[in-house]
Amino acid sequence: MLEHLRGPHDLKRMTAPELATLAQEIRDELMRVIPRNGGHYGPNLGAVELTLALHRAFDSPRDRLFWDVGHQCYPHKLVTGRFPQFETLRQEGGLFGYPSPAESEHDPVYAAHAGHSISLATGVVLANGVLGREGEAVAIIGDGAMTAGMAYEALDHLGGTGKRVIIVLNDNGMSICTNVGALPAHLRQFVPTDSGPTSPFLWEAFGIRYLGPVDGHDVAAMEAAFAEAQRTPGPVMVHVCTIKGKGDPRAEADAAAWHDMAPAPAADKRPAASSWSSYAADAIVRAAERDPRVVAITAAMAKGTGLTKFRSRFPERFFDVGIAEQHAVALAAGLARQGARPVVGIYSTFLQRAYDQFIHDVCIQELPVVFALDRAGIVGDDGKTQQGVFDYSYMRCIPNIVLMAPKDENELQHMLHTALLHDGPIAVRYPRGAALGVALDSTPQRLPVGKAEVLRRGADVALLGIGLGVDSAIHAAEQLAGEGVSATVVNARFVKPLDRDLILDLAHSVGRLITIEENALAGGFGSAVWELLEHEGVEGCRLYRVGVPDEFVEHGSQASWRKRYGLDAAGVLEAVRRHYPELFHREASGARREGAPDRSAARRRPETEAVGAR
Amino acid sequence: MLEHLRGPHDLKRMTAPELATLAQEIRDELMRVIPRNGGHYGPNLGAVELTLALHRAFDSPRDRLFWDVGHQCYPHKLVTGRFPQFETLRQEGGLFGYPSPAESEHDPVYAAHAGHSISLATGVVLANGVLGREGEAVAIIGDGAMTAGMAYEALDHLGGTGKRVIIVLNDNGMSICTNVGALPAHLRQFVPTDSGPTSPFLWEAFGIRYLGPVDGHDVAAMEAAFAEAQRTPGPVMVHVCTIKGKGDPRAEADAAAWHDMAPAPAADKRPAASSWSSYAADAIVRAAERDPRVVAITAAMAKGTGLTKFRSRFPERFFDVGIAEQHAVALAAGLARQGARPVVGIYSTFLQRAYDQFIHDVCIQELPVVFALDRAGIVGDDGKTQQGVFDYSYMRCIPNIVLMAPKDENELQHMLHTALLHDGPIAVRYPRGAALGVALDSTPQRLPVGKAEVLRRGADVALLGIGLGVDSAIHAAEQLAGEGVSATVVNARFVKPLDRDLILDLAHSVGRLITIEENALAGGFGSAVWELLEHEGVEGCRLYRVGVPDEFVEHGSQASWRKRYGLDAAGVLEAVRRHYPELFHREASGARREGAPDRSAARRRPETEAVGAR
Repeated sequence: MLEHLRGPHDLKRMTAPELATLAQEIRDELMRVIPRNGGHYGPNLGAVELTLALHRAFDSPRDRLFWDVGHQCYPHKLVTGRFPQFETLRQEGGLFGYPSPAESEHDPVYAAHAGHSISLATGVVLANGVLGREGEAVAIIGDGAMTAGMAYEALDHLGGTGKRVIIVLNDNGMSICTNVGALPAHLRQFVPTDSGPTSPFLWEAFGIRYLGPVDGHDVAAMEAAFAEAQRTPGPVMVHVCTIKGKGDPRAEADAAAWHDMAPAPAADKRPAASSWSSYAADAIVRAAERDPRVVAITAAMAKGTGLTKFRSRFPERFFDVGIAEQHAVALAAGLARQGARPVVGIYSTFLQRAYDQFIHDVCIQELPVVFALDRAGIVGDDGKTQQGVFDYSYMRCIPNIVLMAPKDENELQHMLHTALLHDGPIAVRYPRGAALGVALDSTPQRLPVGKAEVLRRGADVALLGIGLGVDSAIHAAEQLAGEGVSATVVNARFVKPLDRDLILDLAHSVGRLITIEENALAGGFGSAVWELLEHEGVEGCRLYRVGVPDEFVEHGSQASWRKRYGLDAAGVLEAVRRHYPELFHREASGARREGAPDRSAARRRPETEAVGAR
Repeated sequence: MLEHLRGPHDLKRMTAPELATLAQEIRDELMRVIPRNGGHYGPNLGAVELTLALHRAFDSPRDRLFWDVGHQCYPHKLVTGRFPQFETLRQEGGLFGYPSPAESEHDPVYAAHAGHSISLATGVVLANGVLGREGEAVAIIGDGAMTAGMAYEALDHLGGTGKRVIIVLNDNGMSICTNVGALPAHLRQFVPTDSGPTSPFLWEAFGIRYLGPVDGHDVAAMEAAFAEAQRTPGPVMVHVCTIKGKGDPRAEADAAAWHDMAPAPAADKRPAASSWSSYAADAIVRAAERDPRVVAITAAMAKGTGLTKFRSRFPERFFDVGIAEQHAVALAAGLARQGARPVVGIYSTFLQRAYDQFIHDVCIQELPVVFALDRAGIVGDDGKTQQGVFDYSYMRCIPNIVLMAPKDENELQHMLHTALLHDGPIAVRYPRGAALGVALDSTPQRLPVGKAEVLRRGADVALLGIGLGVDSAIHAAEQLAGEGVSATVVNARFVKPLDRDLILDLAHSVGRLITIEENALAGGFGSAVWELLEHEGVEGCRLYRVGVPDEFVEHGSQASWRKRYGLDAAGVLEAVRRHYPELFHREASGARREGAPDRSAARRRPETEAVGAR
């Protein structure tokens, strides 16, 4: 049936048995594609009947459906014309893993960060009022997303307006991991019992009428509730109870484990190393073993950040606050103020939610809060809403922060160790995915703040890498050596403070710099290096940057995007060729070879010096 | 009595009549100093008895008192040893207008942005548990600040922990302006009536026990409630009802008007012009008269942004969402998605709260949302927590945004006009305080996006100003002309996109650039100019920047800080002297005068060309 569906209007003509068949086809397709391509599993299996009921009760796109977080929108994609492309889910050039207005008129916005749907729906209804337009606005939001503060801001405003926005609370009793906080207990009071719900209604305090609870796998019951909601004069919440992972017994039994999946790796592409997250979590656990003041905080990302290890080992010192990044960071400030040593494990893209708390509650206060900034740089198939390519720019403009990125997982442990010994705000950012597979030192070392590491010395050009840029620089330097160009390779380690003395020395002694970073070029590491040269009045030193251009990076493999942006060794090599052609020209012409026998010797055996790590 | 108070412990020994006398002395002092120095008036008059009761019931600093927003902390300052310095309030080098740990151990943190106190207090209590420390944590939060989403994130988490944090809800029925949203109606249900409160308790949904309401001007009643709170095993909220402006009938009668005050101007220093805010609001109102799609949004800053004019003129198209910046920006996205033309009037420092919404809900979506970014740059006596000096850096690294700053209030109206005609995200940032006093064109003009304006042409150096930097550049150029140095002056207008062609032309033809901006040097406008030169492969052009160094700017007059950072004309002149001494040396030596008669003539009559504005 799925392949003959022309659009959501076709759903309105279907009988109950047809809908049941269609639901099964949708689940089959989800179970087929998600394990292969990766993506959200449990949330989509749980939202199949809800999707069918919504498209029967409402008239999209005239009525606007806002899927909050959007990680449950795959059934919606399948019934809005995207079944033929569903195999391309999360592949480069294929379907996005979240709603995408570029794909369909049924997706009003890109949506991947939690708690915004009520705001958007309120905006639509207010605009309809101003412009004389018609249509309903529906926010479909999970109980997990309802821990995001912005949802309450929206409830408060919406309740005050008295306008009809229909909020569908998709309550599966789970956040991304286990649900936390007071809200689940409150919601449980509404689940049908013999005596019926008698408890205080959170929503009605905000002027939102409450309907439900309704069985989220009973299409007819939901349709009836949505019809009633459309007869309600003001804002209304329909409480729908669904089972996360519905239809797959494994996912129903362990919803946290089956929340999302990595793509199935090709047999020859199994990573040699564990994830960066896992190494970070190990380092934080070890730090907590040494120092009883160390505590860890996550905003619903215990699994993603690897901090489940910390939770198991130190449950009393672990705080999962729900999808509530603002609170997570301000909570860390309170903990630090009182003498604890908090580590906030957070994805780069989600720290954007706590930017003011980062500035106002941590950096102004000069409090020792450690940011373990996961999923920084290019995130790959998660795509444009989740990229971690802005943090160097938005963090380094703020006074008092120390900002680091490791060249490998061994340095990651040293940096987290360093961070926990530092008496002020400090961040370590590291990528998504598998680390490099290097050996770990048995003991973490404290790195001197603001000191870079010289990995190789050469006279022609200096490659200043940060994070994964270092690995690209190392390999580029090796290739350059084969072409008679001797490169210095620096592992910058610190975006802030920079290693002033080293950079000035290289500016004077080498005079040709290339920076390599997995961050927006606008205001990133390379610009910081130039700012230092400008501040110090250095003239005559040339500097070019490799980094992420001014665009939102679409989904696709990390390797593919790194190659496209020239962030790999070949890209660095190409940057040296393009910006410093004179280094190569001298060889091609042979002029210098004849005139400078010493350099010729050096070319046969590159004048580089391996410098021991640290 | 105030002058003999040694600390808050002295309050515990006072009798009720002594406390009443002290309260009057505090009010007298507030009424004496605030109208002269400026600052928050109504909130402090309303918090006098609350302050006394808190310091009698609790034992600061062992018990931590977190004044949310901190705009009501003046009585607290007066009873914690800062009466002798109170005359210096908000003066350069004097007391900060908000809590300050640099001033007193009784101020655990700097606090000036709303809604963070419950998070901080929760952090303290959790740290006490981990570290085995003793003490209460008290969050004193107004009903206005309770519209900030992060407060709900904290309530949800705190309720889940079951730990005792004491939340004092200081309910004066007002936000900064009139209170908005659903919450006030909910709270009103608790104000004592014959039948008593019977309504649903919002807080109890979060697992927070509710006590009250208590008369916030009855010290004994509050002490009793705070004692009961300390006997409560878990989290508890004490609802205290105060009168904003208590003791000054004018302030009691119009709480919005008397919320805060500007300092009394010296007789000879009355500004010649209205505020930038006022000009912005006028322009937005005029745009709304022409275009029925234009709507305006504020997060509790109708008065501060001047948008009360818009509210009066178009009440149906004006949305005050409370202190809820995240919702404000996502709401704007929803309005824009549905065809309206929203203007978000917001202070630069508060846009930090909506940074993720700016990125995720506006810029990724490429929606036509206009940010009228007020109080950008150096904010003067409001001080370090409220500075608007980061926005160029944190906005321009995000794709799709257009970012402008006007040289004067006439250009401000043109830029707002331009913004409302632009089909994508766009921001106009302008300073706090009085504008320049220039004449306004009768009709707003649409400016070409990404085009700068050349105000003066000269061959020796190019001064690229943005915002107020243009005025400094103009005056510096005049002085330079008198010294025989001919300067080009550019009003950059756009931080993003830059005027590529013009800047490249100047890089090649002049080769000496100075940028002037009221923003952090890290990643700001000047860095953007360099990035363009680097991207285009320009070599040999020298560039130096004038801007705000890497520190949180303390309170003091705007003029004083601008002078200190070299942002005024004298500073620009000094920058030219320091970085391009050869321009002056040629005159001092007289060598070039003799060798180059043409230039000598130019020096007597500078080779500049006045270029008409636009």
